[in-house]
Formats: sequence, C-alpha cells, structure tokens
Amino acid sequence: MTQRKLDLLMDFYELTMANGYFKDQKVDQIAVFDVFFRSVPDEGGYAVFAGLEQVIDYLNHLSFDEKEITFLRNKNIFDEGFLKYLETFKFTCDVYAMKEGTPVFPHEPLLVIKGPIIECQLVETMILLTINHQSLIATKASRIVHAAKGRSILEFGARRAHGYDAAIFGARAAYIAGVAGSSNTYADYAFQIPALGTMAHSFIQLYDTEYEAFKAYALAYPDNTVLLVDTYNTLKSGIPNAIKIAKEVLEPMGKRLTGIRLDSGDLTYLTIAARKMLNDAGLEDVKITVSNSLDEHLIRALIHQGAQIDSFGVGERLVTARSEAVFGGVFKLAAIETNQVIVPKIKISENNEKTTTPGFKQVYRFYDENGMAEADVITLHDEVIDTSKPYHLFDPIYTYKSKEIENYQVEALLKPIFIAGQLVYDTPSLNDIRSYHKKALNQQWDEVKRFDNPHTYYVDLSQKLWDLKQSLLKAYKS
Amino acid sequence: MTQRKLDLLMDFYELTMANGYFKDQKVDQIAVFDVFFRSVPDEGGYAVFAGLEQVIDYLNHLSFDEKEITFLRNKNIFDEGFLKYLETFKFTCDVYAMKEGTPVFPHEPLLVIKGPIIECQLVETMILLTINHQSLIATKASRIVHAAKGRSILEFGARRAHGYDAAIFGARAAYIAGVAGSSNTYADYAFQIPALGTMAHSFIQLYDTEYEAFKAYALAYPDNTVLLVDTYNTLKSGIPNAIKIAKEVLEPMGKRLTGIRLDSGDLTYLTIAARKMLNDAGLEDVKITVSNSLDEHLIRALIHQGAQIDSFGVGERLVTARSEAVFGGVFKLAAIETNQVIVPKIKISENNEKTTTPGFKQVYRFYDENGMAEADVITLHDEVIDTSKPYHLFDPIYTYKSKEIENYQVEALLKPIFIAGQLVYDTPSLNDIRSYHKKALNQQWDEVKRFDNPHTYYVDLSQKLWDLKQSLLKAYKS
Repeated sequence: MTQRKLDLLMDFYELTMANGYFKDQKVDQIAVFDVFFRSVPDEGGYAVFAGLEQVIDYLNHLSFDEKEITFLRNKNIFDEGFLKYLETFKFTCDVYAMKEGTPVFPHEPLLVIKGPIIECQLVETMILLTINHQSLIATKASRIVHAAKGRSILEFGARRAHGYDAAIFGARAAYIAGVAGSSNTYADYAFQIPALGTMAHSFIQLYDTEYEAFKAYALAYPDNTVLLVDTYNTLKSGIPNAIKIAKEVLEPMGKRLTGIRLDSGDLTYLTIAARKMLNDAGLEDVKITVSNSLDEHLIRALIHQGAQIDSFGVGERLVTARSEAVFGGVFKLAAIETNQVIVPKIKISENNEKTTTPGFKQVYRFYDENGMAEADVITLHDEVIDTSKPYHLFDPIYTYKSKEIENYQVEALLKPIFIAGQLVYDTPSLNDIRSYHKKALNQQWDEVKRFDNPHTYYVDLSQKLWDLKQSLLKAYKS
Repeated sequence: MTQRKLDLLMDFYELTMANGYFKDQKVDQIAVFDVFFRSVPDEGGYAVFAGLEQVIDYLNHLSFDEKEITFLRNKNIFDEGFLKYLETFKFTCDVYAMKEGTPVFPHEPLLVIKGPIIECQLVETMILLTINHQSLIATKASRIVHAAKGRSILEFGARRAHGYDAAIFGARAAYIAGVAGSSNTYADYAFQIPALGTMAHSFIQLYDTEYEAFKAYALAYPDNTVLLVDTYNTLKSGIPNAIKIAKEVLEPMGKRLTGIRLDSGDLTYLTIAARKMLNDAGLEDVKITVSNSLDEHLIRALIHQGAQIDSFGVGERLVTARSEAVFGGVFKLAAIETNQVIVPKIKISENNEKTTTPGFKQVYRFYDENGMAEADVITLHDEVIDTSKPYHLFDPIYTYKSKEIENYQVEALLKPIFIAGQLVYDTPSLNDIRSYHKKALNQQWDEVKRFDNPHTYYVDLSQKLWDLKQSLLKAYKS
C-alpha cells in the first residue's frame, strides 16, 4: 500500500514565480490562462480531449502539508508569508473545459482557468501533464479503432507503458476512444474497463507438448478457450491442435472453442489459412485475434489484404503513441483582470503559429441541419450566438475565405467545471464518456477522420475576437 | 492523499495462466525466466539498465487484499483454491539482476527470476513495465548527456510525460544517466534530484514591461536571478533589459546576474550575439541556458555550430524518448526445474533474432588490463571463469569470428537480489547509481557510444551455453 500525494508534482518555476508574485503583492491579481495545442499528432485531422476527470480530482484535493512546506522552507528562497499562504491554500479559480471524448482541433482552448495568478500558475504542470497524456493516447486509440472498421481493438500495452500511470490512464484514455477492453487488470479493478487475455507462450512451453498445454487451458476455461497457436508452427501444429481440442476436449463437454490468437508471422497469409482450416472443421464461429506491434496503418493494410481477423490486440504502439509520443498542449496567459475589467494579453512570436489569441474565451461548435459539425468558432467568453440569424464564418488568416451559414445549431463546448473553486460539474461515467466520443466523432465528416491529408476542420474566430486580436497586434507594432 | 495499491497491475493473462497452473497442480513447478531486449533504441550502441529499485519495492510488498480477491472472485473463472492461494501469497523466488546504471546490450539477461511458475508469471507485467520505462529514459538521457560534452542537461519534461509516474520516474532515470537536475519539484522532494527552474513567459507578460518583470524577479531572487529573455525580442529587448537589471538592480546590492534563458528562435545566432552583448557589458560569468524541443542531435549540432551555451533544458524529447518511445524488454521462459534438475527451454522462431537462449544463466563482463569493457559473455549460471587462463571469445552466429584473450578481469553482472523471497541486495543510493553509471560508461569505448553506426559490442555465449543451445535446436529439428 503506497501513499501518494502528488501536490508537489509541478515545475519548480511555478513555485519561484508564485513566490515572486506573492512578494510583489500580486496575490489577488486575477489572470486567465488557456490550455490549447498547435498541431494534431500523426498529421491527423482531429485529436480527442481526455483527462478531465483526473484534473478535477487533482484540483479538488490540492493542498500542502507540513512535510511539503518544510521541504520548501529548506530551499531558503521562499518567503515565510508565501509558505504560510501555501499552508492554508484553497483552490478558488473558475475552470471551464471541454467534455472528455470531444474531438478537438488546434488553437482552440480546451480548458480555461480564471483566478488568482498564483493558483493558476501552481496548477499548470499537473493540468498539462494530465491532459497531454490522456489526450495523446485517446487520439491514437481513436485512429486505431477507426482503422479497424468495427472489429474489436484490445489494449495490450501495459508492459511497454511509460510507468504505472501510463498503463492505467492509458487504458482509460484508450477505452474512451473505443477499445473493447484492456489487458491491464488494474484498469478493470479501478475503472471497470473489461480485462482481457488468456495465455502467453510460456504457458505452452511449460508443457511437454502444445496439445497438453491447450488441453489444460481448455479444461480450466471451457467457456472461454482462446488458444495461442504460434508457439511452434501455426499451420502445422497450432491450428491442428486447436481443432483437436475443439473436437476432443470441448465438444464432448458441450462447449465450443472460443478463439485463437496469433502473435507472429505473416498475419494475412496465416489468418486466411487458419480461417479456412477452422471453417473446414466446422468451426466457423471461432474468432481470430492477432497481435504483434500493430498500429492503425498495419490494421488498415491487413484488412485491405483480406486478412481474416475478428479482433486486434494493440500494445506498445498505442500505449506509447509511438509514431508521435508527444501531445503538445500548452498553458498560456490570455488575460488579466484589473478592477473587474478583463485586460487581454497576447504573446507575439516571429513564428505566426505561436502568436496567441488574447482574451477570456468560449468555443462554439456549429452543426448543420443533419447534426454534422461544420466549424468551431472561438468567441469572447460572454458572446451569445443568435441561431435564428445567419452567421458569417471566415478564416482568421485568409479572411476572404468566408461563408454565410443558416439553419445551424451551436453548442458551447467549454462547460463550467469549477466556479470560485467549487466543483459544479457532474462528472460523467466512463461509459458515458465513451458513448459521447462515439457520437461526437460520428458528427465529424469522414474527410476529417481519414489518415492521409485529412480536411483541416475550420477553427475560426468571431468578428469581435478577431478585431480584438488585430487591435493588440497593432498596438504591439506601434 | 491517494492510496495506491498496484498489485493488480498485471496483464489479465498472468492470472488466467496462474489459475490454469494451479488447477493443473503445477503450483510447485519451478521455472526460470529471463528479462532481455532485442535492439537498442535509436540504433544506439548501448542501453542503460534502470528501474530495479522500484521492482524490488514492488516484489517486497506484493500481496492481495480482500477487495482485490473479491474483484477476482466476481469474474467467476477463478478456482476458490487459487483465490485462497492469492490471499496468502508470499513471494518466494530468487531474483538476479544487473545494477542500475549498467550499460547493457541486446540479448543478454538483465534480470533472471527463478521460482514457482505462478509467482514468476504474476510479476511479469510489473517487472517489464518498470524496467522498460526507466531503461528507455535512462538510455535516452545518457545519449543526451553524452552529446552535451560536459555541459549541463536539465530535465524539463514533466508537462509532456505520459502520466505522473512518467514525470517522476522519468526524472529519476534521467538523473541516473547524468542530468544535473529536473524541473519536477516532486522528484526533488522524493528523490533529492535538484529541482531547477525560474520563470515562464507568463511571468513577464503579467507585468506592464519586461524590465519591471525582470526587476521583480531579481528582487525576489538576488542570489539566483535567471531571466527568460525571449518573450518580446531577445536581442533588442530581452538581453538589454537583463544587462540593465545586472547593473541597476543587482550590482548595487552587491550581486551578480546568474543567467539568462532562451526558449525560441535561432539558438546558435542568438546565443553567440547574447554572449557578446553580455561580455561587452562585463558579464562574462552570466550563464546561458537554452530550451525548445532539444534532443541529442540538436545539442550536437548547436555545439558544432559554435553556439554559446552553458546548459540545455531538455523536455518532451527526453521524457517521452520521442524518437523511439518503446523499450522492447521481454520476459521469456528459459528453463524449468524437475526433481531439482534444470531443464532448459527454448522458444524457436522463424525470425532467428527471436529464438531464445535456453538455460539458467549468468552474464560476465570482460575488461582489458586498462579496465575497458571488451565483451560480455553469457554463461550457465554456475560457470566459473578462471582469469588466470586465456579465454576463447567467439561470435555465437559467425563462430569463425573469434579471439583468445589474456590479462583480463571479469565481473558477474547479475547480482543476487532476492533469495527465496528474501531481499539480499543492499540498494545503492541514487547518487551512487548515478556515479556507477558514469564510471561504467567510461569503461565503454567511444565507438560504442557514438550515434552513427556505433560498434556492435560483443555479447557472446560461453562454449557450454552455445553447445546447450545447439543441442536444443537439433532436438527441435528432429
């Protein structure tokens, strides 16, 4: 049993800055920060927002105990008043965030936090860490599930995950994105994500023959006998032995063989041959699962080649998002509040992509009459969109690219999560998040979801926000 | 405060297999498993073994409580006798492992576990997960430290890590490999890894001017003022303001400016110009730190280009090992014991690389008279090497490639960690592990450490082990 209190899991500069603000009497200075990302991993068309439940849990319990305060005091750089402040720390910010499972796009705020600058700064690292990790894995898993075209994806990556949390919350994020279950028993224990798995090669090797190993397993699990058939030779030994088990061991018990699994070799060739051998033996209902360093591209290729596969076990390439292991969410100052007036702040960069969008903001998703997503529009926080009137969408860079839309619905994507430090959000169950992801992804066009040159989903600015950004850019120039 | 009990963090098949063994009366069957990997990430010449301390902690506390047993019982597939076995579970295996920080090579056992098959199987996932993660990050960090040629590397990756453990144990693994410190405060709190960091752009933006922000920071930290100079314009604003702070704020207090940090732009051009401006102002002692998506290749290029840099902050590309986010450690059955006799087991694969080396084994590192590592030789566990006699090294595939060596020393790399479930290993301190890594890496030739086409370090088999493997291959063929 391990006690774990992660409140000091923060970049040290959060503390040095916070102490600096404290000493400079900025303890009541209100600020607004946005969490957003700049590009979709794997050159994909969308990402999947995940991790909010763990962010909520963290913010709800953030506090500093005596041992932590002593540790900081011993650094000999922190003001005693600041340490006292931490000792009685209470989170009082407002937080707005997208729902977990939402398909999200570059440059739009995924989470907005408004409150005392010190509080905002102290929570930066954990918010980013949590959202970056789970959004990375949910995004990758969503692609893999999409590639499988309705076949099951099983998350098998625990042994290659980047630590225990990566195995646990990676399974959670993958489940949100639609995997059927996980090999990780803890994920089932903690989150009721169905735990899956039957045997490794070692089980087969431990017996004198493959047949004996299969038999022992079938006798132990007659209702769910899935046999790993590639330990010696898949077609000459594994499949014939599996068929024998079905006939000689299971059928006399009135049971059917559930499935076979292949973990090596030419999966297209072997599954086509295996399917035929099974069918010829009257075992058309036996499922074929494959594994072995799979990802969305290999799955797509296997299906394209006519491989006979019912489900895919996906390990290291999902749980580490190996093709792009970084989700680049950032946490940027968007405004401060002075005398109850929001003063927008901009960070200008020579790299235009890195210039921020100032202000306290909201994001609206626009849907057409069929419920399909047309665009997201970033607005000022209190802007209201009158859906009875046409709306003018325009590209924030190439402004001549524009269109008027009518018959649309809008949804404010940033939901209130905390108000004045009080949790006001009813956290949905994991299965509800998973269903919501499926529904929300169905509202995206196939062009956004394809892997090669996906359509760039529109993320526009409202006229008011665009004008504000231009005015700050001009003010900076002069 | 979070209670965390990770004992169910295991692939579900470990449990189904274990229950199968139990039902088949194999509870006393002794087995030997090896942990090894097949290729070095990034086509490097060596990897760094890490994570043993956490493996020890896990094995030392492995147990199953009532809630966990109830969870398993509710699966309705586990034998009541097996659940009872878990309820009173006690780890009784022997474990041998390399010391953390050891440079390690493909195909050699990094950890060997010998004991009841059920126990070995239940701990597979956590052992692999722990070693794969920390060895991945230690290996990457060792490369990055090597590239910096004595300049400091600061680990800044927490916000992009794959979950909390990845931030914490990633910092630990990076520290073993020689980074000077981490941005992660928790890593300092838990492991005394020096926490580092000063300010983010938001600190600068919060003030009306960059100068005011710098001044507030200098007044708060006169003994360690490191200023982030790229918020507006590095050469026109950031450096001139930093120099003014040195002169107008710090010098009157009798203090020196400590350093500046750059996080964007052309780091070679900017650091050369910044160095000149600082030197011209009599600030030769001000250190320059850079960050911004760095890795070993960029660091090497910056140094090659003459960039004026004292230390490098390395974030996402270290903590995720982005260029190769998977360390492919595997856990394979090597032998069973029947009537106190070791019966070696081999797993044959059409892919020769995947054919295992059977038997209960040891690894010896051979050093020449200058203490430089010449080769590793995998032997049977109880083989003794008589260093007074010449030793015949030979390639296990191309056996004609061989040489006789004399005047050598050997070290048995696999140390006893647990004997009959009792911890017999004196876990070194983190700083000792770090020093050991440095020393052990110094015993490797530069040819092994270079990034491009590194020399393939010799990992040979002893004659006895080679003969054993050949005999099993022949037996399998017939």
